[in-house]
Amino acid sequence: MEQLLYWCDLFGIVVFAFTGVLAAGHKQMDLFGAVVLACVTATGGGTTRDMILNVPVFWLQDSHYLWIAAATGAISFYLIRYLQVPMRLLKIADAMGLSVFVVIGTQKTLALGHSPAIAIVMGVMTGTFGGLIRDLLAGDIPLLLRREIYATAALSGAAVLVLLDTGGRIPGSAVVATGILVTLSIRLAALRWNLSAPTARFGK
Amino acid sequence: MEQLLYWCDLFGIVVFAFTGVLAAGHKQMDLFGAVVLACVTATGGGTTRDMILNVPVFWLQDSHYLWIAAATGAISFYLIRYLQVPMRLLKIADAMGLSVFVVIGTQKTLALGHSPAIAIVMGVMTGTFGGLIRDLLAGDIPLLLRREIYATAALSGAAVLVLLDTGGRIPGSAVVATGILVTLSIRLAALRWNLSAPTARFGK
Amino acid sequence: MEQLLYWCDLFGIVVFAFTGVLAAGHKQMDLFGAVVLACVTATGGGTTRDMILNVPVFWLQDSHYLWIAAATGAISFYLIRYLQVPMRLLKIADAMGLSVFVVIGTQKTLALGHSPAIAIVMGVMTGTFGGLIRDLLAGDIPLLLRREIYATAALSGAAVLVLLDTGGRIPGSAVVATGILVTLSIRLAALRWNLSAPTARFGK
Repeated sequence: MEQLLYWCDLFGIVVFAFTGVLAAGHKQMDLFGAVVLACVTATGGGTTRDMILNVPVFWLQDSHYLWIAAATGAISFYLIRYLQVPMRLLKIADAMGLSVFVVIGTQKTLALGHSPAIAIVMGVMTGTFGGLIRDLLAGDIPLLLRREIYATAALSGAAVLVLLDTGGRIPGSAVVATGILVTLSIRLAALRWNLSAPTARFGK
Repeated sequence: MEQLLYWCDLFGIVVFAFTGVLAAGHKQMDLFGAVVLACVTATGGGTTRDMILNVPVFWLQDSHYLWIAAATGAISFYLIRYLQVPMRLLKIADAMGLSVFVVIGTQKTLALGHSPAIAIVMGVMTGTFGGLIRDLLAGDIPLLLRREIYATAALSGAAVLVLLDTGGRIPGSAVVATGILVTLSIRLAALRWNLSAPTARFGK
Repeated sequence: MEQLLYWCDLFGIVVFAFTGVLAAGHKQMDLFGAVVLACVTATGGGTTRDMILNVPVFWLQDSHYLWIAAATGAISFYLIRYLQVPMRLLKIADAMGLSVFVVIGTQKTLALGHSPAIAIVMGVMTGTFGGLIRDLLAGDIPLLLRREIYATAALSGAAVLVLLDTGGRIPGSAVVATGILVTLSIRLAALRWNLSAPTARFGK
């Protein structure tokens, strides 16, 4: 199970790194810019989480994460010239990456002994801050803040995981799988039916 | 005294969270975006301070801060549709929040044994970085960097607190009160008479 | 040698602080905005590095860095009104600052026992993140991500230092000097002949 989650984690790194390169392509960045944006998008969420929780940053302890993000960045930089990227497929892959990151972030925070509320905040942060930093660096208002049911999916998945976790009667693998499935279903449903949350507006 | 300062701190959280929601409203963000911006604005300064000082982040130790910021965000999201916000009152409340945050940040840094200069830097950071991150996320050049006597007020308050603190002959509550009053008076005076610092410009 | 490197480090602080004030001038920031931008540009790279490595932030331990950055900021704020800044000279000075910061960052990370790959990442981060934060705060897409051989120079210098370092047979001062020279030569060559890396673009 742990092994499976690790592979899912690396898959999330690849997908998020690729969205970083797409953003770099839209802004005509150079190779290095694309690789930096790939790494930051893929690792930004977990890095912020670990820095706030004051634990060693995950990619300092296992440098596979960094290598994979950088390699994805470099390869995609050339790939997007010749490849027609199916945006639909990419968004689905992105939803899978999000689900895994949220669950991993929530679990890690719970394992450190923090409260459920903090664990949820950290899970959402792990899943969403990489994309937020990507948008900031590319000069856009973060999509996370404006758009469709993205963070709501993350929030729901983290909340379900926290609810199921208190007890220990349910086996860990079932808890993890449910957390991932909840996030994924809500996000995919939002994509399928173009759901979006109400936006803030002023009285007059 | 400590108790009073704690309540002032929570008041600052509410005010800053509300300015986050106002920024979200100007950019048509959705509910989640508004709540995120509320939390980041309210806690960003103290979080940066604690991360740089390498001490546990304050809202990990007392999650009231986070709850209050999130609740303020969610409530204000709906409130601003029906309420005419008196901007004058808001700026005064913001000045009060700023004063409290600056003093708390300066005091915490001094208590950790850092030099007066570092304490001043950290006090200003505590008071101003939340708003700075808010403006960054909303896609604006931070107001802090362009505008009226805002950070100057923070700097003055922190400096006065540091000056009075060395000694111990003056009771702590008087020191704190003076720091808050100095910041507040300078900021309110700047608001009242539209004072502003000179801006950078090039020779030709 | 150590002493010389320390002076080079302070020189880098001055140069980077000055580029912060130039950015502030382009955006008509006020005095405080210019000083903040000077400090953030000069110390941002090292601060991010130390926070990620979870070691005490360098300017908390030696506040000379902060004083020099702030003083450079305040003096330059007035200086740029009367002085015609030779941009060519500034870019050369900036290249020298970059070289020193990269080498110091790489070395510090190696000394902490991290792997060569991590040391390279941290070296590049030390040299480039200050400017990246400067551009973010000034509302520009970071030049680092778009432009000429800047980070490539940093990457090469850090890589050479890491390669030479494993062994110990080569004296430390020679390793440091080579790292600085490699970064500097590549950057100066890029400036001299207007070299730039290919930019990302889409297939159609």
